[in-house]
Amino acid sequence: MILLNIMTKKNIYSKQKKFYQVFNGLKILPLGGMEEVGRNMTVFEFQKDILIVDMGLRFPEEDMPGIDYIIPNISYLRDRTKDIRAVIITHGHYDHIGAIPHIMPEIGNPPIYTGRLTSGIIKKRQEDYPKSGQLNIFTVKARDKIKAGIFEVEFLHLNHNIPDSFGLAIKTPVGTIIHSGDFKIDLNPIGQEPADIARLELLGKEGVLVALSDSTSVEESGHSISESEIRSSLEDIFKENQSNRIIVATFASLISRIQQIFDLSEKYGRKIVIDGYSMINNVEIARNLGYLKHSSDIQISFKESLKLPREKILILCTGAQGEGNAVLMKIATKEHPFIAVEPGDAIVFSSSIIPGNERTVQRVKDLLYRQGARVYHYKMMDIHAGGHGRQEDLKKFIELTRPRFFIPMHGHYYMLKMHAELAHRVGIPWSNIQILDNGDMALITESSITVQRDVCDAPFVMVDGLGVGDVGEIVLRDRQKMAQDGMFVIIVTLDSKTGKIRDKIDIISRGFVYLNEAKDLLKDARRKIREIVEKSASEDHTTDWVYVKDNLRNKMGSFLYQRTHRRPLVLPVVMEV
Amino acid sequence: MILLNIMTKKNIYSKQKKFYQVFNGLKILPLGGMEEVGRNMTVFEFQKDILIVDMGLRFPEEDMPGIDYIIPNISYLRDRTKDIRAVIITHGHYDHIGAIPHIMPEIGNPPIYTGRLTSGIIKKRQEDYPKSGQLNIFTVKARDKIKAGIFEVEFLHLNHNIPDSFGLAIKTPVGTIIHSGDFKIDLNPIGQEPADIARLELLGKEGVLVALSDSTSVEESGHSISESEIRSSLEDIFKENQSNRIIVATFASLISRIQQIFDLSEKYGRKIVIDGYSMINNVEIARNLGYLKHSSDIQISFKESLKLPREKILILCTGAQGEGNAVLMKIATKEHPFIAVEPGDAIVFSSSIIPGNERTVQRVKDLLYRQGARVYHYKMMDIHAGGHGRQEDLKKFIELTRPRFFIPMHGHYYMLKMHAELAHRVGIPWSNIQILDNGDMALITESSITVQRDVCDAPFVMVDGLGVGDVGEIVLRDRQKMAQDGMFVIIVTLDSKTGKIRDKIDIISRGFVYLNEAKDLLKDARRKIREIVEKSASEDHTTDWVYVKDNLRNKMGSFLYQRTHRRPLVLPVVMEV
Repeated sequence: MILLNIMTKKNIYSKQKKFYQVFNGLKILPLGGMEEVGRNMTVFEFQKDILIVDMGLRFPEEDMPGIDYIIPNISYLRDRTKDIRAVIITHGHYDHIGAIPHIMPEIGNPPIYTGRLTSGIIKKRQEDYPKSGQLNIFTVKARDKIKAGIFEVEFLHLNHNIPDSFGLAIKTPVGTIIHSGDFKIDLNPIGQEPADIARLELLGKEGVLVALSDSTSVEESGHSISESEIRSSLEDIFKENQSNRIIVATFASLISRIQQIFDLSEKYGRKIVIDGYSMINNVEIARNLGYLKHSSDIQISFKESLKLPREKILILCTGAQGEGNAVLMKIATKEHPFIAVEPGDAIVFSSSIIPGNERTVQRVKDLLYRQGARVYHYKMMDIHAGGHGRQEDLKKFIELTRPRFFIPMHGHYYMLKMHAELAHRVGIPWSNIQILDNGDMALITESSITVQRDVCDAPFVMVDGLGVGDVGEIVLRDRQKMAQDGMFVIIVTLDSKTGKIRDKIDIISRGFVYLNEAKDLLKDARRKIREIVEKSASEDHTTDWVYVKDNLRNKMGSFLYQRTHRRPLVLPVVMEV
Repeated sequence: MILLNIMTKKNIYSKQKKFYQVFNGLKILPLGGMEEVGRNMTVFEFQKDILIVDMGLRFPEEDMPGIDYIIPNISYLRDRTKDIRAVIITHGHYDHIGAIPHIMPEIGNPPIYTGRLTSGIIKKRQEDYPKSGQLNIFTVKARDKIKAGIFEVEFLHLNHNIPDSFGLAIKTPVGTIIHSGDFKIDLNPIGQEPADIARLELLGKEGVLVALSDSTSVEESGHSISESEIRSSLEDIFKENQSNRIIVATFASLISRIQQIFDLSEKYGRKIVIDGYSMINNVEIARNLGYLKHSSDIQISFKESLKLPREKILILCTGAQGEGNAVLMKIATKEHPFIAVEPGDAIVFSSSIIPGNERTVQRVKDLLYRQGARVYHYKMMDIHAGGHGRQEDLKKFIELTRPRFFIPMHGHYYMLKMHAELAHRVGIPWSNIQILDNGDMALITESSITVQRDVCDAPFVMVDGLGVGDVGEIVLRDRQKMAQDGMFVIIVTLDSKTGKIRDKIDIISRGFVYLNEAKDLLKDARRKIREIVEKSASEDHTTDWVYVKDNLRNKMGSFLYQRTHRRPLVLPVVMEV
């Protein structure tokens, strides 16, 4: 039950060539981004040419303690690296770029094509992975076309909450693929042009064979909120707090939102102090590349801000999800070296809450309120616009591109299913819609789409510290078990001549009971251990330590459960001296 | 950081009598239900008389692995049990009754006064705690009055999503206290009368000294949704699915919702199969006591249902929060012995999602969609009405009762703060509003309210298996640490004569790396351990094992971090033979 997420599908490779191996048309193989939100990576293959779109990470689930993040499994590509013509990165969010340092060296470092801002973000992140090596990045802009083997890729300008976010039109010998990237249609965006609807429409008229589209916000009805719509809510906060300091926490990647904060600060005469590693980096990259525009003296250091009255300061920082290491959490818990909340401070959470973070966000809010701050969050007013198209955007996308075949992507299964239903409602026949799992391959000709299930195994590759893929089900299960009821190590030293226990039985236990207050339990446990060992050992006087240890594990497990109704991990060590 | 929730306040009792001990007026001391949602319990004290309202539990936070639930800390009551006149239970939800089996035997088992349904639920639960002993319960109905020492308690009919949910009017020598219980004002409830607004108003006119009111839904604007409003949405599902089976998952405690399901099933000619321990129990209790009304033959066994066509069946079960052991999860994961999803099944999640459960609910939905079910949840349509008053209900409550003093209860600090602001907006002066933490005591006279902070320590008492309160910060920290990066036990046997390591160094590690694939790391670790021990031991040839162990712990911790960027719990054992 607990390991629901890492259940993997059985996949026994046979020696015999499979149908997909001899199939001559277009193959689409998602290695991530299906059955989940995040870890986006899709393989497009036509005969001897492979094109990869995105290479993202995903943050771990609750049942993966200690894991930093998860990346796609590239087993399918291992003996195909010579065929990989290019990697296209649609935009600079971690769920699209995060696996690059891990995967690129493994697949022969093919050329990467992406936007300028994305390129800046990728290069900056690469500095944290010195062993990953130099990347080979080419920058493109909207309507640019590049050749990658048999594929011709055109970059389409769509809206998202980071600039340089592209959809793709990929020409292949059997027809055009449209890949939406992460997108919404924003007619009044901030710091970018409206989505290139004209181009989408023209491509639709010319004929689209298959479209893959973003399902992240398929549950939301109506149109997505325009980034410009939230400006008035944000401006209200500036107006209401003319005599207070403002602290805005948002995602470092929301460059459009950050632009708004700069614009409003300028308008209302505030200087901006920026804090948080990723926020500082992203602002710097975006500014250097011309994606963030502001007057030269608006950003100041914390030290400079001390000379200004509080109402002239805005602090822009990370931590709107209640992340433990981010700036806002440090402010809330009074662990920040410089910034402390003062009564009247207006604190704005300008992002939605990612499912799973609700309780932590509640705690942060609690701490801030206790210190007299006033908190604004997206439930109270429109101070966040999601980056993903809602139902009406999604329908529009399909209506414009008019694909013959449709594959929903980026979402849990139920989201993909809902997106499929939406596509059906706007006219795509059921037989032309396919929902894929990671590792399933769509086989497409000019007139047909079929799916070969489980072409490759696509279980999670977990990254934990320096280890990539070395934490698997067994390690996770042990972590979960120890988290639940702790562990109980029994160390028994036996006299090899007599088969009797020498000295004291050592017990090391953590996370089970507080040992100093469980003296009786320990005494009884030692008595029980002695009994089990001496009985097991004396039964036939041969010393079958495996048997003795199994006996200790099982019987002491039962004993401890009976006494406490807890099931610690019992680990017996038997030593002979 | 991680242990935010169990940070406790320093509380050094002095020998000197504190002001509150000599104060002669009314004392109100929450032991739970402030700074949190759940674990409701409040002590009312006037001279030598103590009245307790509610005795609930709260479910653990994410940073409390393995904990079953948390109950109030009753240290304050330990030497006052002879003064406790009565325990009032406002209604039958676990956050109001859940600590009864643990606390009642500790405080001399005073009489309990509560509604008939609540009494039935309490007694049923008591069967699971045979050691807790017999309770002394008296049942009451709305407008009943009981005497408890100096207190006179009147039971007020308010609405909630379980019948027999009372507010309280508590008469004391200094004035009347109004305690809202969990409430909303529903003018068209199901299976119960509308809230007794007339009585509240009359009490208000007679004069209310202090009101304590439920803050759970203070973030929601407007009026609460009436239970009857959701009937039409539920009925739509019945209409749309005339040829499908319907499975409804909801809280077992939502008796009013269950009544609706029975009513609609009757109307649309369906038979009901009930599954889930708590659902079966609650339906039985409610039916036996006359709180659930239906025709005699509507509920059938699963076996009987096999003779009926699927579209004539409704399954009512637990698990709308994605709980691991509940029926819906078992159905979703195909672990249920009898019930399997079939394409077309309509599955209704008729409850809101408690913060923290979002991801699990997503997983359950995913599994159900994969099996061809259609899922209805409260985001899609109004199929759940919360049980707690929203802003307009809360304002109305204050306007009706017109209290001199106001204490918001049941909520995190920021909710209490929002409720305080609401109370201020409807006319209560700031000086008459007090926000309490658990363990703070309000001292009230006819004309004043002051607060003595930290009268008693109110940290969580954690229940884990058979242990109540034996898991504390240390045990939890170890669980968290082991969940993050596992543990690494080093067993070194030394020859007491030579000070040299005898035999092989034993290493037991779980949850850290997969040892079979980390042979090099283990080899290097053993070499390092040998080096550390022999160096520490040889430095001055005395064998200071504490020093050797500290050295091992620190240096091996650094070694393992450097090699893996993980920090397992390092536990050295040094044995001399």
